Amino acid sequence: MAQAPAAPPSTSQPAVSTDPLPSWNEGPARKAILDFVAKTTQQSGDVVPPAERIAVFDNDGTLWAEQPMYFQLAFALDRVKALAPQHPEWKTKQPFKGVLEGDLKSVIASDESGLMQIIAVSHVGITTDEFATIVTDWMASARHPITKRPYNQMVYQPMLEVLTYLRANGYKTFVVSGGGVEFMRPWMERTYGIPPEQVVGSRVKVKYEVRDGTPVLLKLPDIDLNDDKAGKPVGIHQVIGRRPVIAFGNSDGDFEMLEWTTSAKGPRLGVIVHHTDAEREWAYDRDSSIGRLNRGLDEGPARGWVIVDMKSDWKVIYPVQP
Amino acid sequence: MAQAPAAPPSTSQPAVSTDPLPSWNEGPARKAILDFVAKTTQQSGDVVPPAERIAVFDNDGTLWAEQPMYFQLAFALDRVKALAPQHPEWKTKQPFKGVLEGDLKSVIASDESGLMQIIAVSHVGITTDEFATIVTDWMASARHPITKRPYNQMVYQPMLEVLTYLRANGYKTFVVSGGGVEFMRPWMERTYGIPPEQVVGSRVKVKYEVRDGTPVLLKLPDIDLNDDKAGKPVGIHQVIGRRPVIAFGNSDGDFEMLEWTTSAKGPRLGVIVHHTDAEREWAYDRDSSIGRLNRGLDEGPARGWVIVDMKSDWKVIYPVQP
Repeated sequence: MAQAPAAPPSTSQPAVSTDPLPSWNEGPARKAILDFVAKTTQQSGDVVPPAERIAVFDNDGTLWAEQPMYFQLAFALDRVKALAPQHPEWKTKQPFKGVLEGDLKSVIASDESGLMQIIAVSHVGITTDEFATIVTDWMASARHPITKRPYNQMVYQPMLEVLTYLRANGYKTFVVSGGGVEFMRPWMERTYGIPPEQVVGSRVKVKYEVRDGTPVLLKLPDIDLNDDKAGKPVGIHQVIGRRPVIAFGNSDGDFEMLEWTTSAKGPRLGVIVHHTDAEREWAYDRDSSIGRLNRGLDEGPARGWVIVDMKSDWKVIYPVQP
Repeated sequence: MAQAPAAPPSTSQPAVSTDPLPSWNEGPARKAILDFVAKTTQQSGDVVPPAERIAVFDNDGTLWAEQPMYFQLAFALDRVKALAPQHPEWKTKQPFKGVLEGDLKSVIASDESGLMQIIAVSHVGITTDEFATIVTDWMASARHPITKRPYNQMVYQPMLEVLTYLRANGYKTFVVSGGGVEFMRPWMERTYGIPPEQVVGSRVKVKYEVRDGTPVLLKLPDIDLNDDKAGKPVGIHQVIGRRPVIAFGNSDGDFEMLEWTTSAKGPRLGVIVHHTDAEREWAYDRDSSIGRLNRGLDEGPARGWVIVDMKSDWKVIYPVQP
């Protein structure tokens, strides 16, 4: 039988807050999370054995922002600009011409093959170690076009608290995102406390090669897993190998992940973060091309899923900047 | 800076052994393992941060036996027998005829397409949950043809001690095997203390489907990853996402895994279990069709890999049966 979590160590400071979710307003979403963790970790008929405490989180729009474009696309566009001097032909060739001229509309309007060309030149044909270095350097230097924050400070403070709270209660936290796994792993451990082996994402095929005695993994231009929609339960099965107990998402790309999680036996928690705050963040759902949330709003409540209203449920959006 | 591991709690019993590897004889292999763990976990210039302490283990021939045939093949043959009443045509059709008549030579001699037919009828076309139940039931009832032990008691006691010892020193232990990941996950947590999310293996594609409102993952007849040879670093990259510090294998199927592990910067340990004990287990290496070890013997020592001599290094092979 699992024990209740130990009380935090006492300190000599007065009035230390022991609220595990200080950035959440009182309300049904906060209460649902607290109640679920209490019943699955303290003595009750619903306790979940520690080894089975698996919680999965979408990334884009759930743990960090995704407007005005997916941040991985911003990375890809910056990468095209960095590589342009080696490709003079891009000046006159779409979709690269649009990227270099800052004509984002033409890029976003370009068909899927245009976007795939941008992903191809920015994400493949190099080794996994080289790519990780490029991502790390970009994360240190790039800034969000509107907030001017580093992208890894465009994360949601209330969700950071959920991650910490779940881990303190014996849950293993995984990211399960449609984003590229190699784009996420280099910075997630420091930002979310989630190590590389707990990050599931889309991926290209890689090939093992020995170059002058040094082995490398080369990134190939073939998709190996599209970790979105019905691909999310597949990614969960491949990498985690058992059904999660808790799933957080924000878009219909997370529908199957929440369905797979909450349809299993025993206590299950599904949560959808609804982007309702046009002032502090962005407000979008059914008609958005990014993070569309339609079926989840229609069917989620009847499935028992908790809908988080960002505007009313969250006291703050982003962490205080250091 | 990592601290030395805490001493085990004192007990009132006299003469409690604190040897973490009691089934290993004194010798260079035992010493190499103990020395490596000490220098990477206690204050030294070679200390490895706890988050990076990743150890990977092949399964067949490294953690459990693999003679007279891979145990997963024994499972597949038993499965053919169990399914035979639904397939009267198998009585006259190879490779099934050979399986049903106990003519193992004809099965083993059959070409790869014959083996693939056996794997196909025994491993795909059902859901992942159904398959896990079949594996669990088989593990509880099947017995090794020579020792008459359950297969999950054909594990190596000295390696169980290594797993426990590494975990006690902050290493995360993963299996990285050519065997099917869904064949391994149902029993490894109880047998090795390795949870499903730390098992990497070969796998078929799976498809998410909702059947009468219930989601399932259906096992398809297409290989998704052959987690052997150069596929092992690929599997490690996909699932673990960082370079291991320690790798144990026993055959040339593990060569690239050891190469990938030990060619990275910093302290690294590669170990090959050499099957040298014809009396207590089996003796085989360069000429074996199962677990062939040739290149590893030739190149391993110059690469600094430790070669374990099962006959002289191990006091016992299997755990005492309950």
